[in-house]
Amino acid sequence: MISKWLNVRSLLSTEQLSNIYKYEQIDNYRDFHPNEVINHALSKERWIDIPQQLLENYQMIGRQTPLKRAFRLEKAFGTNNKIYIKREDTLSNGSFKITSALPQAYYGSIEGKSSVITETGAGQTGVAAALAAKLTGMDCKVYMVRNSYDLKKLRRLMMEMYGAKVIASPSEYTNIGRDLIEKGEKYGSIALATSEVMEEISQTNGSMNIAGSLFDFVLTYNTLIGLEVIEQLINNNIEPDIVIGCVGGGSSFGGFALPLLDYYGDRLERVVCTESSAIPTLTEGSYIYDYADGNGGGNKLLMYSLGCDFKAPGLHASGLRYHAASPILSHFVHEGTIEAQAYDETEAMKSAIEFAREEGVVASPESSYTLHAIKEMCKEYDNKNIVALLTGNGQLDLESYGGFL
Amino acid sequence: MISKWLNVRSLLSTEQLSNIYKYEQIDNYRDFHPNEVINHALSKERWIDIPQQLLENYQMIGRQTPLKRAFRLEKAFGTNNKIYIKREDTLSNGSFKITSALPQAYYGSIEGKSSVITETGAGQTGVAAALAAKLTGMDCKVYMVRNSYDLKKLRRLMMEMYGAKVIASPSEYTNIGRDLIEKGEKYGSIALATSEVMEEISQTNGSMNIAGSLFDFVLTYNTLIGLEVIEQLINNNIEPDIVIGCVGGGSSFGGFALPLLDYYGDRLERVVCTESSAIPTLTEGSYIYDYADGNGGGNKLLMYSLGCDFKAPGLHASGLRYHAASPILSHFVHEGTIEAQAYDETEAMKSAIEFAREEGVVASPESSYTLHAIKEMCKEYDNKNIVALLTGNGQLDLESYGGFL
Repeated sequence: MISKWLNVRSLLSTEQLSNIYKYEQIDNYRDFHPNEVINHALSKERWIDIPQQLLENYQMIGRQTPLKRAFRLEKAFGTNNKIYIKREDTLSNGSFKITSALPQAYYGSIEGKSSVITETGAGQTGVAAALAAKLTGMDCKVYMVRNSYDLKKLRRLMMEMYGAKVIASPSEYTNIGRDLIEKGEKYGSIALATSEVMEEISQTNGSMNIAGSLFDFVLTYNTLIGLEVIEQLINNNIEPDIVIGCVGGGSSFGGFALPLLDYYGDRLERVVCTESSAIPTLTEGSYIYDYADGNGGGNKLLMYSLGCDFKAPGLHASGLRYHAASPILSHFVHEGTIEAQAYDETEAMKSAIEFAREEGVVASPESSYTLHAIKEMCKEYDNKNIVALLTGNGQLDLESYGGFL
Repeated sequence: MISKWLNVRSLLSTEQLSNIYKYEQIDNYRDFHPNEVINHALSKERWIDIPQQLLENYQMIGRQTPLKRAFRLEKAFGTNNKIYIKREDTLSNGSFKITSALPQAYYGSIEGKSSVITETGAGQTGVAAALAAKLTGMDCKVYMVRNSYDLKKLRRLMMEMYGAKVIASPSEYTNIGRDLIEKGEKYGSIALATSEVMEEISQTNGSMNIAGSLFDFVLTYNTLIGLEVIEQLINNNIEPDIVIGCVGGGSSFGGFALPLLDYYGDRLERVVCTESSAIPTLTEGSYIYDYADGNGGGNKLLMYSLGCDFKAPGLHASGLRYHAASPILSHFVHEGTIEAQAYDETEAMKSAIEFAREEGVVASPESSYTLHAIKEMCKEYDNKNIVALLTGNGQLDLESYGGFL
């Protein structure tokens, strides 16, 4: 079993890091995140030990997750390529998100935090935060974007099942929320929910936030995914050729692909991240210093961005709606080590339906782009070992598939 | 890996069998089920080989399923008992049901059947049938009880995701259905849906039914669950003391507990099946010859029953609403080898919520009764190895939990 995380910042030189994080003042985040978590973000060590208690929690919620060959899909494609799928859908909470939520909650709890206050869009981050808080003995309150709160009732119930209090944002609980409601804001957004969370944390002793994406510590904690894959590939004598996953903020892809890139290097023929052509951050965005927060808050970071004021269209894969992508991931895309491919939503959803019918697994809509990329890849290549990440299961997103059935 | 099923009829003597099945004319079912499946029901062999193709399909959908110790639950109960949970919730379709659906579809397909026509209540059987049909190259049509069709939209979508056509029953597609609609039947029932299915199968060449419960061949195919548990217990040097699962028709419990009973015999201190006190088939029903079908069709079988005209009340665990229980399981309850315990729904659902908060897993409402039994058991015993079956995951049943949160 893997017992260390790979620190993703250790993959870049000091010069590269100081360029990317020129305007970063990460110490300011110590008011919102546990100290040890921020220490990990700033660490120069290559490896970070995973505490024993966390290893036990990881095991309990279903890590390591399986790496399974998709024999039937290969046959349906009539391909000689071998397709291996890393199955994060098998985790108890339904997605990879718990992999980074657990350590955040764990370090918070040992630093004396007693409550998690966090934001969520479609709910995957909120579900993971709720479970992570419960497993570490903390209370949890989730500000859920009101539009999702109304439409994604089962994800809300799942957070409540894990003991969280779920609040539609904008809410009456914060000054920002009350102000927004007065101005007629009906749907909310992740940026507005984040603002409510920050206001409440700053006024609540012993409270902390759980980040679901973007921060380097999230990628570092998620490297467990890629490190497990390396171990699984080695144990089965498989040499990977092509690595594929989807990118919203890049936290699952970074955790999956960066350890593989680090370990296999040039032996990897292609490392491909997929995104929606409706939100083409990595394929059409600019490599600029931009704000991480959708409301222009936080620090400016060097990354691919569509602009922090980009208005993302509706998308069934709501996890891919973020305007930018992780600075470290963006760095590798910019230097050409990692490529990006954008696909049409309808094509992606159809490929996910085909996947369900061949392999029996309902994928998260985010991963539909990955599944479509595999299909396209199989037209182009022969006798390759393709390793792909399935970020979560889509059972609670079945309504999203409804229109494509 | 397990490569044989245990034939549950081989556990009884010829005299016992001829008493129980005095009125059975199972050959009549050859019009609706594959010949090999009916042969298995009648077989006198102790073991039945699982074909290689099926072993591969079983592996693909997530067998073997894990047997995991519930450390946090033990701690929450403050008990010295060790609690082991067989995790059928981890299967791709979400429940144990695929374990018996797959072989039925497999044998049908090699006998030249081209379509599955089947009935479903809350949808777990339908989801498993849809996936089994797809994996064996058959079309699938599911008559879903209209009340569930309207209320359980995500289960319907999941069947469609697997390529099935889902029809609300009563429907306009059959004489029986049209007649019922004319008479004002709005909600439907599993018995009525079965009647529609039988009518359509009798008029459709190459079609077959997939049974979700009751038939002995279903229990036999499900013995894979118990056989896996035995292997897992042996590999981990665990000697089980108490075995617990829930019973609707008894197909999951039979598949789980009968192999354990056969292997460990008197070394098991208690073998307990749980049911809802609102439908107390095994705790308050009569041991009589009764019809298996809720509409009085089929053969009379010796079993515990509340009467085939019993009107089951609404229950969140809709899989437990059946009026009778498997004849073979009933036999063991009648002779006292297996005990039955009935629990209140509210207590059961609360125990399932506690389980989610301790172990991170949302259980099927059916299994909430098992989870409550474990809790009660831990008040009574010390230092026992408790082995329990979790029949499926309840993510698509989260609305059922809503009222208890």
